[in-house]
Amino acid sequence: MNSDKFYMIKNFKLIIEYDGTDYHGWQRQRNDRTIQQEIEQALSTMTASRVTLNGSGRTDAGVHAFGQVANFLCPTDLSEAVILKGLNSLLPDDIVIKDCRRVDEEFHARYDVKSKIYHYQIINRNVPSAIGRQYAWFVKRKLNAAAMRSALSHIFGSHDFKSFEGTGSPRSHTNRNIISADLIEQEDGSLTFKIEADGFLRYMVRNIVGTLVDVGLGKITPAQFGDILESKNRKKASATAPAHGLFLMEVKY
Amino acid sequence: MNSDKFYMIKNFKLIIEYDGTDYHGWQRQRNDRTIQQEIEQALSTMTASRVTLNGSGRTDAGVHAFGQVANFLCPTDLSEAVILKGLNSLLPDDIVIKDCRRVDEEFHARYDVKSKIYHYQIINRNVPSAIGRQYAWFVKRKLNAAAMRSALSHIFGSHDFKSFEGTGSPRSHTNRNIISADLIEQEDGSLTFKIEADGFLRYMVRNIVGTLVDVGLGKITPAQFGDILESKNRKKASATAPAHGLFLMEVKY
Repeated sequence: MNSDKFYMIKNFKLIIEYDGTDYHGWQRQRNDRTIQQEIEQALSTMTASRVTLNGSGRTDAGVHAFGQVANFLCPTDLSEAVILKGLNSLLPDDIVIKDCRRVDEEFHARYDVKSKIYHYQIINRNVPSAIGRQYAWFVKRKLNAAAMRSALSHIFGSHDFKSFEGTGSPRSHTNRNIISADLIEQEDGSLTFKIEADGFLRYMVRNIVGTLVDVGLGKITPAQFGDILESKNRKKASATAPAHGLFLMEVKY
Repeated sequence: MNSDKFYMIKNFKLIIEYDGTDYHGWQRQRNDRTIQQEIEQALSTMTASRVTLNGSGRTDAGVHAFGQVANFLCPTDLSEAVILKGLNSLLPDDIVIKDCRRVDEEFHARYDVKSKIYHYQIINRNVPSAIGRQYAWFVKRKLNAAAMRSALSHIFGSHDFKSFEGTGSPRSHTNRNIISADLIEQEDGSLTFKIEADGFLRYMVRNIVGTLVDVGLGKITPAQFGDILESKNRKKASATAPAHGLFLMEVKY
C-alpha cells in the first residue's frame, strides 16, 4: 500500500501584525533576521515543504505592521484554522498571524494591491515617553499642526513623488496617487499622520513626515512644501523620519 | 580662600514615567535592577551627594507607571529645570522624569498620599497582539464585560480587602476605600480596568483583575465575586493577573 498522499495546491492569504523593533524589515535576507523568513520557516515546518511568501511589499528595518498581507501556495491538507493556530504557536511573540484564509489561486498579495494605508506616530511634548517609546518618534519642540495640515493639501491626487523617494528603490516610475492624507491631534499631545495611496516609493512616508515636521517647526512654509514636491529633487526635502514611528495599517485589494 | 559652598537643603517632587518590563520593580534591591536605584544613582551623580528617594509606594516587578511620584531632600544649587534635564539625559530611555518641582520641606511622597489611580489593560480577541504586547494581558476567550462591571459594584466604598491581598505585605490593616472603579471597552476589543483608592494592598489590583476575568469568563458570578470579598480569604479569589498589564497612572496629594 502506498501511503503517499497528494494534495491539491491551495492559495492562502495571511494578515500579519508585527513589532518591527528587532527585525531587519520584511524581506528575506542572507544574514539578518526578517519577518518573511520567520514566517516562511514556520510554514515550512508545518507543511514539511518549502514555502515562499509573497508579501504586499517590503517594510524597512524597524517599521511595524498591524495589517501586512501575504499569500503562499502550498499543497496541504491543513485547514485555515490549523494553519493560523500552528503559525502563532511557532512564531516569536512579536509576529502574530491575525487571519488565514484560502483564496482564489489567482490572488497575489503584491500584484493585486489596490491601495495601502500607513500611519506615522509622533510624540510631541516636553519630555520623551518611556511607555511606547518603540512606537513613536519623539519631537520635543512644539509642532504647528495647522501648518502641517495646510502643507498636506499639496499632495492629494496624482503626483511624481521623486522628491520623497529613497535612493536605490526598484520601481518603474515615481508617480503615485494619494487617496487620502490627514493629521490627527490626540489629547495627550501626540500626532498621527494617516496616508492612503495606490502605492508608495521607498522611504516615501518617512520622507514626507520628515519634511512635514520641518513645516511644523516653522523651518519650511506650507507653500514651500508644495515647491519641494514639484521640484522632483530629493535634495530639497528634509531628512527621513525614523522607522519606529511607521505602521503599515491595511492593504486593500 | 575657602571654595566650599553650603546650600540650603531643598525638597524636590518628581513625576516619573517608566516601562517596568526590564526592572525588578520600584524598590531598591541588593542584586537586581530597580527604578528607584537608577534614579538615585543619577541624582547622586548630578548632585555629588548621596540622595535617597521616597517613592509614593512600591510597584512590583514588571509593573509600569505613567505617574509615579517621589521626593528627595538635597542640599543643591541646581534648578528644577536643570535637574529635570540632567536626570533625563542620565537615565535609560525606559525611565523618564516628566516633572521636577521644588516643594515644601514637609512634603513626603508616601506619607501624604490621598489616593492613587491604577489602570489594567486586557487584550481580548482571537489572537494575541504583537504591537504593545508588553503593555496588556492577552485573554483569548471572549469576556462578558457587563458581568464584570456588575461584579465591580461590590467593591465601592470601604472594605477589608484581605481576600485580594498578596502574602508578605507590610501593612497595619487591610481596609481600603475604593473611590471609583470602572471597566471601559475599547473599539479594538480591549478592556481597561480603572480603579482609584486611598491605598492598595500588595497585588490588590492584580488579584481583583484575576478574579474579575473569571467573572468575565463565567467561572464566577458577580454575586460570588461579592462573596469572595466578604470571605476575607485569599484562597477564595482567583490567580493574580500578570504584572505587565498594570499601570500606576496618578498619585493624588
